[in-house]
Amino acid sequence: MNATEDFKNIRIVLCGTSHPGNIGSAARAMRTMGLTQLMLVNPERFPDPQANWMASHATGVLESAKVCSTLDEALLGAGFAVACTARSRELSLPLLDPRQAAGELLRVAATAPVALVFGNETAGLSNDEVGRCHRIASIPADPAYSSLNLAAAVQVFCYELRMAAGAVLAGEKPQVPAAHEDVERFYASLEQSLVETGFIDPEYPKKLMPRMRRLFNRAVLEVEEVNILRGILKALTRSSEKYK
Amino acid sequence: MNATEDFKNIRIVLCGTSHPGNIGSAARAMRTMGLTQLMLVNPERFPDPQANWMASHATGVLESAKVCSTLDEALLGAGFAVACTARSRELSLPLLDPRQAAGELLRVAATAPVALVFGNETAGLSNDEVGRCHRIASIPADPAYSSLNLAAAVQVFCYELRMAAGAVLAGEKPQVPAAHEDVERFYASLEQSLVETGFIDPEYPKKLMPRMRRLFNRAVLEVEEVNILRGILKALTRSSEKYK
Repeated sequence: MNATEDFKNIRIVLCGTSHPGNIGSAARAMRTMGLTQLMLVNPERFPDPQANWMASHATGVLESAKVCSTLDEALLGAGFAVACTARSRELSLPLLDPRQAAGELLRVAATAPVALVFGNETAGLSNDEVGRCHRIASIPADPAYSSLNLAAAVQVFCYELRMAAGAVLAGEKPQVPAAHEDVERFYASLEQSLVETGFIDPEYPKKLMPRMRRLFNRAVLEVEEVNILRGILKALTRSSEKYK
Repeated sequence: MNATEDFKNIRIVLCGTSHPGNIGSAARAMRTMGLTQLMLVNPERFPDPQANWMASHATGVLESAKVCSTLDEALLGAGFAVACTARSRELSLPLLDPRQAAGELLRVAATAPVALVFGNETAGLSNDEVGRCHRIASIPADPAYSSLNLAAAVQVFCYELRMAAGAVLAGEKPQVPAAHEDVERFYASLEQSLVETGFIDPEYPKKLMPRMRRLFNRAVLEVEEVNILRGILKALTRSSEKYK
């Protein structure tokens, strides 16, 4: 099973986890499926003996876990991110089940770091956090009670990654996705230009930038595409500045 | 979602469970996937407050759980049973992965009660218990550490049952893609603007527009997105024209 080679390119990101026991259980779930890269964004308590206890023999994953203060930090260098959520959302990205998500993650992981992002046990992921991801994934659940335990959800996704690693299509040529921070820089200059031209009223920005994020994240921008887009933006704004 | 109708014919059987918390977590895992028939063969402690605590909102599954003194009792009336195990066995029955097991279970559940049998957290199922089942199923795991938590294993199998039942993701909302001609109009104005600002040399346009097409077509633009993009383009070029 060589595809598990690419598992080192797959980060499991837990945002704002409340219970350290869940961090430990998630680490165990990851480890049994062969995944080891854990990132913790603002965990309430970590390290913590309860995390170690629940990790059982997977404490190595906890020891090498990175604690970050923002999701951006956890996504540094990542070219593709999937937001795991149980809620349906208004401005939704393409919605995948865990099997589809695993397939896409593994495909991109062959060329770039990727991330699977989980929210807080009660509140899930914020719209701002989801806006930094390229896909939304959801575990099909009973509508009458759809709230999986966090580590159980991690287990399901990691299981699908392992299943997918056994069945990767040969001959597909992977593209190199742009790094998170480069895409963010493009969003920032786009927003700035739109404010300057008056297209966005900063006092009342509506949903314009979230919509733009959704569009471009759906496409998973490649390195060269981001360069072209930034070039276009610069060309358009420079031509207006000339005459000022 | 009619296939989940047959879920009432699927029993989850936990044999000799040591920790009541695992019984509660397993109940929650079942409930979120729409399964409710829990049978407990000689649990060490049940009922127990820790089981209720870990079940979260799935205490109904615990309340209707049947406590049995033998596996035979739990399999009464069942026509097909799958033994879940992490160990390879000498006298092995056909070995399935969770996906294959879910498919077979669901097929038989259309006509008869079936069972998915899990062993004790440490010792697993005895050969005598496995001998009462028709198939062995195993979750593919990292050989270096293959020991899933009991409830995590229950979650994976119940998830596969729900996937096999053809469950539809909640909140899936189909988007309306923009019509071909509207997208083409956007491409035309984009190209025109880029020529006007000198970003594209019409004599030597390179591959810029094909690349832009590829990017936006990958995203499959929606009606409103095309409108926004045309608006942005107009705003940016108008602001330059003002000064001409």
